[in-house]
Amino acid sequence: MCRWNAYIGEPLLIDELLYKPKHGLIDESLHARMGAETTNGDGFGLGWYLSDMPTDPARYRSVNPAWNDANLRDLTRHIESHLFLAHIRAAIGSPVQQSNCHPFRHDRWLFVHNGMISGFAQMRREILMAIDPELFRGVTGSTDSETLFYLALSYGLADEPLGAMERAVGFVEQLAESHGIDAPVQMTIGIANGERLWAIRYSSNAESRTLFVSEDVEAVQRLHPENPRLRELTEGDRVVVSEPLADLFGAWIEVPESTGICIEDGSVDRRPFEPRRPSPHDPRASTSA
Amino acid sequence: MCRWNAYIGEPLLIDELLYKPKHGLIDESLHARMGAETTNGDGFGLGWYLSDMPTDPARYRSVNPAWNDANLRDLTRHIESHLFLAHIRAAIGSPVQQSNCHPFRHDRWLFVHNGMISGFAQMRREILMAIDPELFRGVTGSTDSETLFYLALSYGLADEPLGAMERAVGFVEQLAESHGIDAPVQMTIGIANGERLWAIRYSSNAESRTLFVSEDVEAVQRLHPENPRLRELTEGDRVVVSEPLADLFGAWIEVPESTGICIEDGSVDRRPFEPRRPSPHDPRASTSA
Amino acid sequence: MCRWNAYIGEPLLIDELLYKPKHGLIDESLHARMGAETTNGDGFGLGWYLSDMPTDPARYRSVNPAWNDANLRDLTRHIESHLFLAHIRAAIGSPVQQSNCHPFRHDRWLFVHNGMISGFAQMRREILMAIDPELFRGVTGSTDSETLFYLALSYGLADEPLGAMERAVGFVEQLAESHGIDAPVQMTIGIANGERLWAIRYSSNAESRTLFVSEDVEAVQRLHPENPRLRELTEGDRVVVSEPLADLFGAWIEVPESTGICIEDGSVDRRPFEPRRPSPHDPRASTSA
Amino acid sequence: MCRWNAYIGEPLLIDELLYKPKHGLIDESLHARMGAETTNGDGFGLGWYLSDMPTDPARYRSVNPAWNDANLRDLTRHIESHLFLAHIRAAIGSPVQQSNCHPFRHDRWLFVHNGMISGFAQMRREILMAIDPELFRGVTGSTDSETLFYLALSYGLADEPLGAMERAVGFVEQLAESHGIDAPVQMTIGIANGERLWAIRYSSNAESRTLFVSEDVEAVQRLHPENPRLRELTEGDRVVVSEPLADLFGAWIEVPESTGICIEDGSVDRRPFEPRRPSPHDPRASTSA
Repeated sequence: MCRWNAYIGEPLLIDELLYKPKHGLIDESLHARMGAETTNGDGFGLGWYLSDMPTDPARYRSVNPAWNDANLRDLTRHIESHLFLAHIRAAIGSPVQQSNCHPFRHDRWLFVHNGMISGFAQMRREILMAIDPELFRGVTGSTDSETLFYLALSYGLADEPLGAMERAVGFVEQLAESHGIDAPVQMTIGIANGERLWAIRYSSNAESRTLFVSEDVEAVQRLHPENPRLRELTEGDRVVVSEPLADLFGAWIEVPESTGICIEDGSVDRRPFEPRRPSPHDPRASTSA
Repeated sequence: MCRWNAYIGEPLLIDELLYKPKHGLIDESLHARMGAETTNGDGFGLGWYLSDMPTDPARYRSVNPAWNDANLRDLTRHIESHLFLAHIRAAIGSPVQQSNCHPFRHDRWLFVHNGMISGFAQMRREILMAIDPELFRGVTGSTDSETLFYLALSYGLADEPLGAMERAVGFVEQLAESHGIDAPVQMTIGIANGERLWAIRYSSNAESRTLFVSEDVEAVQRLHPENPRLRELTEGDRVVVSEPLADLFGAWIEVPESTGICIEDGSVDRRPFEPRRPSPHDPRASTSA
Repeated sequence: MCRWNAYIGEPLLIDELLYKPKHGLIDESLHARMGAETTNGDGFGLGWYLSDMPTDPARYRSVNPAWNDANLRDLTRHIESHLFLAHIRAAIGSPVQQSNCHPFRHDRWLFVHNGMISGFAQMRREILMAIDPELFRGVTGSTDSETLFYLALSYGLADEPLGAMERAVGFVEQLAESHGIDAPVQMTIGIANGERLWAIRYSSNAESRTLFVSEDVEAVQRLHPENPRLRELTEGDRVVVSEPLADLFGAWIEVPESTGICIEDGSVDRRPFEPRRPSPHDPRASTSA
Repeated sequence: MCRWNAYIGEPLLIDELLYKPKHGLIDESLHARMGAETTNGDGFGLGWYLSDMPTDPARYRSVNPAWNDANLRDLTRHIESHLFLAHIRAAIGSPVQQSNCHPFRHDRWLFVHNGMISGFAQMRREILMAIDPELFRGVTGSTDSETLFYLALSYGLADEPLGAMERAVGFVEQLAESHGIDAPVQMTIGIANGERLWAIRYSSNAESRTLFVSEDVEAVQRLHPENPRLRELTEGDRVVVSEPLADLFGAWIEVPESTGICIEDGSVDRRPFEPRRPSPHDPRASTSA
């Protein structure tokens, strides 16, 4: 599987989260701590927003393993951002190439995914056909993750991310059923637009990978106790991680199964995540016939 | 544009063709001799057949510029093949990644393309939908070239390459017309299956890039006059080049516009290449509506 | 040869200089305008300083050709810097790898070089031995450029760049003489430390590549006339380019042969650059025996 | 640490050893089975000899993790060799770049190393200075492994590999002593010249990584029981692995500490490996003062 981290709050040097903590994301890309884990060495990506360009996210993606990429280390030491997403990839079934690394980007939106769509090889063509023709040109890779993102964009992610994801997942689950594929969707999702950060934890069979949100600023500060920069953090700063960091000091909220959250200005809103199958009139469902 | 070379005949060390000749393919990737040329530094690829594995072509592709790839130089000095295709890429509109480098491969078939499909961004979705669902999984990149290859496979390239290409090109030209795109197709094509080599020169507006076939063995020998290996070549050995090599000694046949050729056992068969539009009953045409 | 650009002045988005101008550096990496030029597709590098971290330059280097590197395009659109150096490489004799891309970096210093040391293969070992042992660990690549940088650091570049370069070049010229190598050094050099920018134009036989400094802010503004950002530039902003940009509007100072310049706070100081051979007591000269 | 495999015997398709066995080298590059192991994802390399070019080894090296390199998979399925070495790298202290991947090559010689030279950063300069000036140009990377290889070449590896390695290791151990570095050398080494294969297992403190040689042809055949190709192997075929493969069927000789072996024509000669310190008259020792 993959892993991802996100941060939203006062501007932070990116390496404070990615490199400094013990068992942070970059360290995790190399050392698979849990026995069943594969190494996440099939590329990585970083997307971030600058305060004076909140609708124009920057992105750096590479097929190098994260742990040995000198550029990533250098960049993260010199870029400060109020909102960023980082992802390390373990490829399943699609080539290792820059266009298959997360985050995926469309206009002001960034998207990361940990998990998979089972049976994607059988369903890829139909899901691609369900993407809006105007959006189709943005699909440059061949992953299930990017395809899911563009399907959700087609369902209005830019207006309402959680609702659009519910409809996209519902579409995939219905399509999977028609193909005899069980439990197709497994995901934790991170979505950002420059002002807010959303996260989703959902799987068709309720066996998702983990997802945690930091509850208070102490949890973030303890990422690196000797770090004076982190003492300047304020209450509203949040870290979202798909895997727990070294020791979970402070309070970390584990995001439950089938839950979507939205973080803005320090507050964390939670709601159920319930996929919605396409209505009989949904044109996308008919093109996949 | 891109460039490609091919060889069919008695087994030859690949670097004899790619590196040794003055202004050979690798040299050409760096030095753009003709003023309007862009450098072909967006990756390269090599596909070759071994005498004891004629239905299982090997392939090496890289995003490195061909001129500075140490592995390519090393490999070509140590691989001997009776049939191989080499391609250097100048990317237009799709990412530089290994999955977008030629040759494309499907079962025993290799495919290279020099040229472009104008307006491909507008037509990509519809062309993709016209590809047979069973073949669709083989599409791993995002180029017009690979898409054209899989469309031709859908039209029976594995049974009859030239006819299938006529139908694929006819499909694209009809689709282009419906989008108001002029002169969509520009191509020289190389196709191999382990035993034969096909080449096509065609453009919708009859302004194709060049294509040459060596007529006699002297033309091949003069690629590198001091080279004793080349003196062992026999009459049936042929070289196909998309761009002329340094000095055209010996006889080189320029492949005319709108022509397809098939080379086997030393003989070169030529026939007109005439795209055929889909019939009204062609299911592919209706899915693109 | 290679090419490089530098900027010093009010903070500027890096792509304003690298991508926006017609025939700017990135464009030049692809289109070799002058007939004798090779393509500069053997990697590139970018080094920049942030206002709040003036002694800790950031760096991004890649073996990809600059024109097709998506990350570079993205980064330069999102990084603003008051002092940066960009370099595109045409490799001569050493491998294409990240550690051989410029700029080279040591503490707060960045260094780029356009040119070569002739006969470097014969002299490399001796030049390496002349580098201070404490500095030696910083040498990670195999280029003449990096070696020259570390030799100059050994001669006190961190205290006085131009004087140290004069001594380093003098050392190389003397060593070359002992090896019977003519006209060993050909260079334009860029050096930065976060506050100042130095440039040198020198060749052993006075046949250097070109070097230009913008004289007034209009020269910089005309890089991209429709660009409102550039209208905000002030008098002290300077651009240094190794090759002329499209049309040289405004005033550009051509740096003469055998000249070193230092730019700070908008003023350009010029002085002769005169290599100084090692004295008989110079320990470095004896270790090269 | 790194890992390596080697084969000598009747020509074998390379992937039979690298990919087919359970827990073979490529699989091992991804799944670190033993808890203390780091992933070996910092590049890989393959060197092989062709029967008709026994003094001109071919080589393919890449910074990609071995498990996701499509070219490696393709190449190994199509290359047959009577003698080859494969290496996967876990970098310690030197950049991940092609010139730092094993095997290293000089004329007809190939060299791989699993292990490290402790304190190499302090000793690198002096070891480099001890390499013959004529050989120095061949050093293109920055690893301890390559440096050790060239030092051994300077001590006559091309005439007698084991003796030269004893002298090179003795040099390093003496130099380490002068720097106060304990137990500097840890290594298993593979060396080939097109006709013979040597291996060494040695560490300054006798705590080497493991090394195994297959004793009989059954051990090789059981690498992949359903594989008819392997049934054609003859008694003289040998596999050397730095780490044990899945289940050690058949007989595997564990190479003891401080031992060097030479394999040719099926027989395995063993002798003690005893580093020899430089004599007081050894010019290399004096240059390192």
